[in-house]
Amino acid sequence: MTDHPLEWDAMNHGTPPAKDAAAQAAWDRSVAAHHALAARPGVTLQASEEIVIVLHPGFDTLDAIGPHYFLSSLLGATIHLATTGPVDEPVTSAGGLPLTPTTTLEDAPEAPTVLLVPGGDTAVLLRDSRAIASIRRLGAAAETVASVCTGAVALGAAGLLDGRRATSHWSVRHLLAGYGATAVDERVVTDGSLMTAAGVTAGMDLAIRLVARLRGDDYARFLELGAEYAPEPPFDAGTPDRAGAELTSLARDFYATVEYGLRAG
Amino acid sequence: MTDHPLEWDAMNHGTPPAKDAAAQAAWDRSVAAHHALAARPGVTLQASEEIVIVLHPGFDTLDAIGPHYFLSSLLGATIHLATTGPVDEPVTSAGGLPLTPTTTLEDAPEAPTVLLVPGGDTAVLLRDSRAIASIRRLGAAAETVASVCTGAVALGAAGLLDGRRATSHWSVRHLLAGYGATAVDERVVTDGSLMTAAGVTAGMDLAIRLVARLRGDDYARFLELGAEYAPEPPFDAGTPDRAGAELTSLARDFYATVEYGLRAG
Repeated sequence: MTDHPLEWDAMNHGTPPAKDAAAQAAWDRSVAAHHALAARPGVTLQASEEIVIVLHPGFDTLDAIGPHYFLSSLLGATIHLATTGPVDEPVTSAGGLPLTPTTTLEDAPEAPTVLLVPGGDTAVLLRDSRAIASIRRLGAAAETVASVCTGAVALGAAGLLDGRRATSHWSVRHLLAGYGATAVDERVVTDGSLMTAAGVTAGMDLAIRLVARLRGDDYARFLELGAEYAPEPPFDAGTPDRAGAELTSLARDFYATVEYGLRAG
Repeated sequence: MTDHPLEWDAMNHGTPPAKDAAAQAAWDRSVAAHHALAARPGVTLQASEEIVIVLHPGFDTLDAIGPHYFLSSLLGATIHLATTGPVDEPVTSAGGLPLTPTTTLEDAPEAPTVLLVPGGDTAVLLRDSRAIASIRRLGAAAETVASVCTGAVALGAAGLLDGRRATSHWSVRHLLAGYGATAVDERVVTDGSLMTAAGVTAGMDLAIRLVARLRGDDYARFLELGAEYAPEPPFDAGTPDRAGAELTSLARDFYATVEYGLRAG
């Protein structure tokens, strides 16, 4: 649950609802728990990170929203949805979901705490030289540069993977070597200020690690519990090894046009 | 990856890109893989489900988008984002993300294939008697009624849990008994036409099971592999058992106002 009824300011200066004794008791318990979480070693409950998530045409919704969910839970952090296009136009995901940007890549904070590039129809992004230049500029100034799925290929095109260890979706990970990276078969790869995630759902694992980096391990543990993040993949088929050679080969063929687009980008 | 460059119609009637031999080869491989997936036992590659996802003020983004990601991958399915408010107003999630609805609950398909209610600030939804009446009506006609996280409490308020086995977020699951349900500590609970998921991230496990029900196990396996859904929760703290008593108690207190709101709703 992301519900955070009590912003830190409200806790310290606001007035409780006090509709009745039970409401007051619930409020008091929540306030005390906020303070208890803040007091745990290494935890920063309130801060003011500037987090930039890039919205590009055909981005994969879950690549962006998985991390967004966890990062938007951070009290005081600001999340900017930075479009590669005009700010007054929604950006439509690969799955057909339009998201409204809050800024453009050009107008995004110049030295963000985090720059995160989701994947999806990343070939379109690769052909947008202005967007790639903005990602290069923001990435050079960001404290942490992150990608999910094929978003790593855009980081590569922006020159941000050269000499670094990185990962991407299993079907295109081999392309990272073309950008000077060492491709690593791990779910989340951290190399200094660079954090790259494998395909789609790995963005959530990345985000929780990022929360730990920004706000402390116990804040991250708390969010894992709040999100009930103890997945039980119904078919245990989430990696090539687990899915087996036949289904993997089928999927690789299914995505052949994606891989072609990234190679040709 | 949700990328599906080839809609079924395009595969059978459209023209390939044929920019060059490599593009043509990628296209041919992908077309063949689409046919191979469609030919697997039990798989329906193309259909026309009407899937209604309820957007209510303060919904949890990931409760809605986790399932949306997988369901929007289904070739031919239509996803309706049905707002409890006016259709021309975005609905803002608990994490501050505005989503644009495609319809209202009143105008949504009367007998949807799936009705899915996400959680979040569900107390607001409970107080919206018109929305609850619409959920009751749509739920009675839907082939499958589904919820994620505290969304189950809204199903309960709509009378859709009476006599059924169901689950919800661990911190409020006990409230389901008040609606005549048997609360079950499982990640996804299927009871006939009713599928309920535990907290937030369990919506993805539910969605993959739903894909299997709608389109066959092998389609679901394929999407698990495409989404690289083999999570590695960094802190193994996603359930009360795993997080331990102290952190669980803190989280329960942190969410005290949420539970109060649902009880008072």
